[in-house]
Amino acid sequence: MMSVRTGLRTRLNSGMIRVKAPAFKFAMPSITTTSQLRFITTAKPAPKLSLEDVNENVLKAKYAVRGRIPMRAEELKETLRTDPKSLPFSKIISANIGNPQQLDQKPLTFYREVLSLLQHPELLEETDATLQTLYKIDAIQRARHLLAKVGGSVGAYSQSQGVQGIRETVAQFITNRDDGEISYPEDIFLTAGASAGVSYILSILCKGQNTGVLIPIPQYPLYTATLALNNSKALPYYLKEEENWSTDPEEIEQVVLDSIKKGIKPACLVVINPGNPTGAILSEESIQKIFDVAARYGIVVIADEVYQENVFKGSKFFSMKKVLRNLQKTHHGLYDNVQLASLHSTSKGVSGECGQRGGYMELVGFNHDIRQVFLKLASISLCPVVTGQALVDLMVSPPQPGDASYEQDQKERKDIHDALEQRASKLSETFSRLEGIDCRKPQGAMYLYPRLDLPYKAIQKAQHLDMEPDEFYCQELLENTGICTVPGSGFGQAPGTYHLRTTFLPPGTEWVETWEKFHKDFYNQYRD
Amino acid sequence: MMSVRTGLRTRLNSGMIRVKAPAFKFAMPSITTTSQLRFITTAKPAPKLSLEDVNENVLKAKYAVRGRIPMRAEELKETLRTDPKSLPFSKIISANIGNPQQLDQKPLTFYREVLSLLQHPELLEETDATLQTLYKIDAIQRARHLLAKVGGSVGAYSQSQGVQGIRETVAQFITNRDDGEISYPEDIFLTAGASAGVSYILSILCKGQNTGVLIPIPQYPLYTATLALNNSKALPYYLKEEENWSTDPEEIEQVVLDSIKKGIKPACLVVINPGNPTGAILSEESIQKIFDVAARYGIVVIADEVYQENVFKGSKFFSMKKVLRNLQKTHHGLYDNVQLASLHSTSKGVSGECGQRGGYMELVGFNHDIRQVFLKLASISLCPVVTGQALVDLMVSPPQPGDASYEQDQKERKDIHDALEQRASKLSETFSRLEGIDCRKPQGAMYLYPRLDLPYKAIQKAQHLDMEPDEFYCQELLENTGICTVPGSGFGQAPGTYHLRTTFLPPGTEWVETWEKFHKDFYNQYRD
Repeated sequence: MMSVRTGLRTRLNSGMIRVKAPAFKFAMPSITTTSQLRFITTAKPAPKLSLEDVNENVLKAKYAVRGRIPMRAEELKETLRTDPKSLPFSKIISANIGNPQQLDQKPLTFYREVLSLLQHPELLEETDATLQTLYKIDAIQRARHLLAKVGGSVGAYSQSQGVQGIRETVAQFITNRDDGEISYPEDIFLTAGASAGVSYILSILCKGQNTGVLIPIPQYPLYTATLALNNSKALPYYLKEEENWSTDPEEIEQVVLDSIKKGIKPACLVVINPGNPTGAILSEESIQKIFDVAARYGIVVIADEVYQENVFKGSKFFSMKKVLRNLQKTHHGLYDNVQLASLHSTSKGVSGECGQRGGYMELVGFNHDIRQVFLKLASISLCPVVTGQALVDLMVSPPQPGDASYEQDQKERKDIHDALEQRASKLSETFSRLEGIDCRKPQGAMYLYPRLDLPYKAIQKAQHLDMEPDEFYCQELLENTGICTVPGSGFGQAPGTYHLRTTFLPPGTEWVETWEKFHKDFYNQYRD
Repeated sequence: MMSVRTGLRTRLNSGMIRVKAPAFKFAMPSITTTSQLRFITTAKPAPKLSLEDVNENVLKAKYAVRGRIPMRAEELKETLRTDPKSLPFSKIISANIGNPQQLDQKPLTFYREVLSLLQHPELLEETDATLQTLYKIDAIQRARHLLAKVGGSVGAYSQSQGVQGIRETVAQFITNRDDGEISYPEDIFLTAGASAGVSYILSILCKGQNTGVLIPIPQYPLYTATLALNNSKALPYYLKEEENWSTDPEEIEQVVLDSIKKGIKPACLVVINPGNPTGAILSEESIQKIFDVAARYGIVVIADEVYQENVFKGSKFFSMKKVLRNLQKTHHGLYDNVQLASLHSTSKGVSGECGQRGGYMELVGFNHDIRQVFLKLASISLCPVVTGQALVDLMVSPPQPGDASYEQDQKERKDIHDALEQRASKLSETFSRLEGIDCRKPQGAMYLYPRLDLPYKAIQKAQHLDMEPDEFYCQELLENTGICTVPGSGFGQAPGTYHLRTTFLPPGTEWVETWEKFHKDFYNQYRD
């Protein structure tokens, strides 16, 4: 039975309120007695918030990377802390999230020497001799240079768009990366990781249920989550697993046309390259065809290129901006209106500095007044963390030959890169040996997205447990081995197919062997 | 004359689309020719985005602290850089924003020693003897301790809610501050400054145009900006200038009743204490009466308490949580359902570490399932910058008597506090001497919000220039002296009154004298 207050509350939520007696019975008299606290009256206190008081868009948003399985992993971690012997494994292997330094990947020494000095500028007043007992000379010089750029302290708000001098370094980096195609500091926005950039773009371009955003399936769930928060429609386009997760321009155009027919404006198209969760890398032609659709339908392209450093032997990364500039040169005006927002981050690559929240967004081809809207939005959150901005500067302009840190820095980068590539192969070779599991050859990023051909009995069991079949597999994997992955249902997959995403960041190879043993037992248990 | 594409675009924007021939003329044939790039067809490229393609909520949002006057100041700064002699002043005095370290306030040494070591953990493997040539022993020990808390690297993502061990320190701080009223780590969310906390609360509680949020007038414009982004209604309640900007509980209740009558649910009530922009501090009774309204109407209270350390002699800060707990003890159940979100930050106080983006939010009295919604929202932005979290730990647990850094740390804190208080008095004394300007005695925070009784001719001139009169005064002040302030129209004020907000952070007193001279000239020029 609903209380009077709940009744009022429900009407309030429905947004169609007729204020009825009950609401006023206690409110009215109180108006008259203001001298002391109103509760001397007999008014009943209002109830607490419940989920029905919460913005539906927030309720709708899902983020599987930190979803049910990872949360369960946190519980198990706690169990192990209190009773290390209570589980069939001694520790949780966090393969659910690309968080390298949680898994003992060492930060690049040069980065940290500079950041250490930036945090304590008084040190920079010491003599080089004293400092050089603890810091390399090029780190000391870079810290002095960066400290001047940020205006003397990383503790001051910077311009909301990011420190001018750092945006200049980023623009120079992009210009070099793209073989001289010019990048302008005015087009660079420094952001707290890449997520903040995504959030800016979608809040600006999403106008409600009549706006759609093309999202690759499988996707990184940040996109559907942010879309849900912005109350706009995800327009899924499927990546072709059989062609190593590449894009299908015809399907993309069909999605665009269908959405226009439905009265939904396709405002943006998200490309994640190298792919998350797929680990695949797009060909130049695939990228050209995406721009072709974008140009004809006036769709803004979001290029999530945070894994551009994570590219394995035999694969090549094409920057979307470079491909666009080539199209513009060779096609006389046809691509001049294309608008591209390209994202990069200090969290991935060989930097792996997730906790430092550094990143940038380059806006290509946007009109000035639209850039001003981005700037206003950035100003409402004041500025990205300044040490994160400094880290972006270091990422895009590392030590050069002849610098004191150069040799060691190169070795550290190579070691991290090689370790990732080796573990990726080791893991995919293992998968290739196993029954009912099919995995594309890894090309880059930090993930494998193997396909699970699950036994019918396992699917039945999952349905019985009211779970997605791949979620059931991931749960069993976690409960039996401590290996935490994310089910494909969290990223999206073709109907009737099942996958999971695993990073290849955890050190060592024992966990891979444990997984192999679990997988065999699982299939033996559920084989039809 | 509208082009065919623009015509389509307009219909797309209107969200009511009938796909007409022109859209298909070029789209259809392209379906058939997929082998080469589609632009071999005669299709016209789509136009670029214009403001009509942008989310209206984003267009509506305003943030005066970085609005027109501060932007003009940036231009003038540039002018001075290129030609130092070209203006009637030699530098910009940024009194528009509470950004102490931009104005040469030194960071607290202890904070920075610890952060410096956290950024370069290899240093912590050195002997204490070596390290102590550059760092105090308690900073070294604290860094080791914090590094363990964050799991070995500030470069790893933390829990989205923030590092457990740091939330425990915060909870302990709040418990001590509130004379033993218990605070729980589960209720603490570490955030990127206080702004991120405000954004979480409003995105969760705003359900569109039928949701209202009570905002003090004058307010810190972050609130109306975030409300605009969330497409919900600001319900202004006026602070009583004549009673030193205190609240009027009767007016607040009237705003609540009027909004319910209009079918708008009053979901939250924002209290900024100590006040921004007013610099005023609320009495215990004023706070009790706010909770009284909150309790009877089920309104969540947002307590923006980021200036709780900035309290001047003769004033006392009452934490809203402490006042609530007292009410709950003395009023048997009447206040038990009150839900309070209290915000704090490392950007203000004597820390002034704006660029480090540290802060926390304590959720008091919320149900578990609502806390889970906050957690999900936090997880979508992964985690607050970890060094900012560490800084929160340092802010709430500074060196203690007997620690190596204690004496110096105490002195640094006292010097910053005293300098702020002295400049506040100096500035308000100056104002009190001046014609047509009326300023409350400063009690805390970092701002004065003097009232301008502008000459009729100045108001006429402003109207002629299509500006708010106080914006006109601030513009003239900027153009003539380089002093950058924010007009009252950016914060809100009683109709027909004019104000401006100035910080008292800029060092020295010459700028105050310059302002005094400008003000006299201005009044002489426009005196009726």
